Amino acid sequence: MSQEHKIHKPKPISGFPEWLPEYRAVELQWMDKIRKVFESYGFCSIETPSVEEIDALTAKGGETEKEIYTLHRLQAEIDSSHSPDFRTTDPRLALHFDLTVPLARYVAQHFNGLVFPFKRYQMQRVWRGERPQKGRFREFTQCDIDVINLDALPLHFDAEMPAIIWEVLKGLPGMETEKFLIRINNRKLLVGYLNAIGVTDENFLTDIMRAIDKKEKISPTDFSYLIVNACKKYSPRNDDAISDLIEKIKALINIKCSAPDELEEALEGLVFERNDLYEVGKKELVFVLSALAHAPPGEIIADLSIVRGLDYYTGTVYETVFLDNPDYGSICSGGRYDDLASQYINRKLPGVGISIGFSRLFAYLLEKGALPVGQKSPAHILMILPSEERRGKAAQTAQDLRERGYNVELYHAAKKVSDQLKYASRKSIPYVWFPPFEDGKPHEVKNMANGEQTQADPGKWEIPK
Amino acid sequence: MSQEHKIHKPKPISGFPEWLPEYRAVELQWMDKIRKVFESYGFCSIETPSVEEIDALTAKGGETEKEIYTLHRLQAEIDSSHSPDFRTTDPRLALHFDLTVPLARYVAQHFNGLVFPFKRYQMQRVWRGERPQKGRFREFTQCDIDVINLDALPLHFDAEMPAIIWEVLKGLPGMETEKFLIRINNRKLLVGYLNAIGVTDENFLTDIMRAIDKKEKISPTDFSYLIVNACKKYSPRNDDAISDLIEKIKALINIKCSAPDELEEALEGLVFERNDLYEVGKKELVFVLSALAHAPPGEIIADLSIVRGLDYYTGTVYETVFLDNPDYGSICSGGRYDDLASQYINRKLPGVGISIGFSRLFAYLLEKGALPVGQKSPAHILMILPSEERRGKAAQTAQDLRERGYNVELYHAAKKVSDQLKYASRKSIPYVWFPPFEDGKPHEVKNMANGEQTQADPGKWEIPK
Repeated sequence: MSQEHKIHKPKPISGFPEWLPEYRAVELQWMDKIRKVFESYGFCSIETPSVEEIDALTAKGGETEKEIYTLHRLQAEIDSSHSPDFRTTDPRLALHFDLTVPLARYVAQHFNGLVFPFKRYQMQRVWRGERPQKGRFREFTQCDIDVINLDALPLHFDAEMPAIIWEVLKGLPGMETEKFLIRINNRKLLVGYLNAIGVTDENFLTDIMRAIDKKEKISPTDFSYLIVNACKKYSPRNDDAISDLIEKIKALINIKCSAPDELEEALEGLVFERNDLYEVGKKELVFVLSALAHAPPGEIIADLSIVRGLDYYTGTVYETVFLDNPDYGSICSGGRYDDLASQYINRKLPGVGISIGFSRLFAYLLEKGALPVGQKSPAHILMILPSEERRGKAAQTAQDLRERGYNVELYHAAKKVSDQLKYASRKSIPYVWFPPFEDGKPHEVKNMANGEQTQADPGKWEIPK
Repeated sequence: MSQEHKIHKPKPISGFPEWLPEYRAVELQWMDKIRKVFESYGFCSIETPSVEEIDALTAKGGETEKEIYTLHRLQAEIDSSHSPDFRTTDPRLALHFDLTVPLARYVAQHFNGLVFPFKRYQMQRVWRGERPQKGRFREFTQCDIDVINLDALPLHFDAEMPAIIWEVLKGLPGMETEKFLIRINNRKLLVGYLNAIGVTDENFLTDIMRAIDKKEKISPTDFSYLIVNACKKYSPRNDDAISDLIEKIKALINIKCSAPDELEEALEGLVFERNDLYEVGKKELVFVLSALAHAPPGEIIADLSIVRGLDYYTGTVYETVFLDNPDYGSICSGGRYDDLASQYINRKLPGVGISIGFSRLFAYLLEKGALPVGQKSPAHILMILPSEERRGKAAQTAQDLRERGYNVELYHAAKKVSDQLKYASRKSIPYVWFPPFEDGKPHEVKNMANGEQTQADPGKWEIPK
């Protein structure tokens, strides 16, 4: 092959992250930890295809927001002179943008093969064609847990979700010292309150909820402006009445507290006419908060401003932010829905779930330099190759150590020992094993951290504690 | 919500498999086992994005064969009245169809961050828009290992690859009793031989290699027909000469043996004028076979008919089939390439790799009923909920057992004990824990397999061996 051929140095594709091996190793530790905690609570693993039929993805109407990627066969494009085949006999497919829509389809499709309450976890990539920015990727991994039941689902699960997530986040290597905040609210309480203060029209309600959802990202003036506009459109009233409405909304959404009695007291202070929806929501939120009372103060709170955008939640909602960087966005969110799969099945399937924004979380710690980045290789031991003649014996020693549970790389060429040591050091392999360089001599092992070299028996040696 | 709304029972999408939790549990065990073996040889994990730029995927010219899926944003389709945006400023993206093309790009892009020989494993989904059939999916998982080095790569790695694969396949739950055959050949030997018997023209060679590649799937008549046609097109000769050519090709490709000396003897018997390429290839193949002599006889063989289609291999090639069902196709294949990333980097990067067709292998055992399908839940223990009043205590016992490494599901409602036991049985949870139903009583645990129920201490109890 010519040495003069053209070279195209590849560039990263914006929004599609990938990591060097030493970071990937931490990512794997994270994955293992998350899986372990999920399974310790009895959640089973499932995976669904990366694609769904477009109709399934757009059924709930969020397609514009989620920026769905559709799939086309390149060959079909070529066959039809560069115009893609929208109308083949195959269904139109697109990459899923979350793991909840696929779960709904999965539960309906495999209904008879599942035992309810169905508790599943799912750790997969999802795709959104958004403009990439800090913490927002086009391809990213989510780790979801959901519990789905027939007809009714006990409220205890609403409290179990943040408890599990708290245990996960605290246990991730590098996250030990990060302070985060799990914020919980209840849509019934919020909607009941808004109804009570005059926000009854469906479109009006949507606009007000959307304004509340945006409140943290916009100025107080802009917030008021959104409320004024919503009033103009759906429920005209005079300036005083608008000011009053804004004050009443603020009175609710400014409530943030971690103790259940504190929450009850704050809610007592609100002046409005109670209704059933509000009372149910309040009871649920107090229940969830009480069940989480064992968490360290201030890490799990009721925050009455949490809405979770336009999603399908109907009760409890969750959102999680870094305490010292709340603007980075939610690293973990979810909530309760009344009926997961109503478009597929004539059976009520209420559920509650929560999703870790794995890639966002990981990227944050990576950029901050907070990940415990370690080895470029999973090897515990580099086996020195003394000479080509002794390759068979060195390979056998490596195999013996592997059978005892160690990861062992046999050096690939009979180079100078100093070269082989340098390789171990560059790959940060912690131990170097010297098999006998001639018959009758003992094995030795070198601890690369402190340079100590000692005799060792491959059938007995253990990594020093 | 109306109970009378329209129901669309979802159907599976052809070529995009998904499994019930009890099968997924086995899939996870497989993944863990594969990863463990790969890491035990010092291979590090990487993952690449699911997409590459289309130009990168089609650079080697295999796009027609591989049926690439391209990506489009649904919103862009809608914006431009249902015609997709081919010419945005973003690069055109497509889903990768294997893990080797992404590896080439990865190695070039992160060249300075890697230590060579770079030994990586990669277990990811890939996509091909082919017509689905038995063992052929549109979305499937591959598990690849490759070693890449600068300038030159020792031949020992060519022997290490099938040894690792053999260890992996033997260790997968359900595969213990399956007989498979790893078949090895060498492209240099094959091409050298074909050159020597008169197949020198590049296109002629390609057609002959393609015919050999197909030989097992077609009749002897059709095989001869392909050779005759290739001769007509590129190297006309009389009928006798064609017959002679066919005989000579058959003489080589019928050689199949597991012992290196047997192989050498068989090759000695071939009548043709030796050339350097052939001699190098022969030496390499004998070397690899010798290094694998410890495998059980007949499970790893030299098979001189193996070509590996139109792929980029330049030396050793591998293919693996089920002994009792070779027509199912290769479940594991790969080979050596001279230069992985020549289009990206002005440095020679030879490598050797092998890829397990994970989904194909898994689907085969699943369909055969050979998978050790177990629990619908990862829980070791179902914790009985005696009453709502005792929920806190039951939850605490569950948490104590989790901290000791057990997966524990707390039953969700204070139903009759018989209902709770039935649930454990339906989810095939092996142990049921009875926390005290009143203060001062002991804990008890029931072994669901034999019905035995005994007193137990949550701080000490172990699953009986």
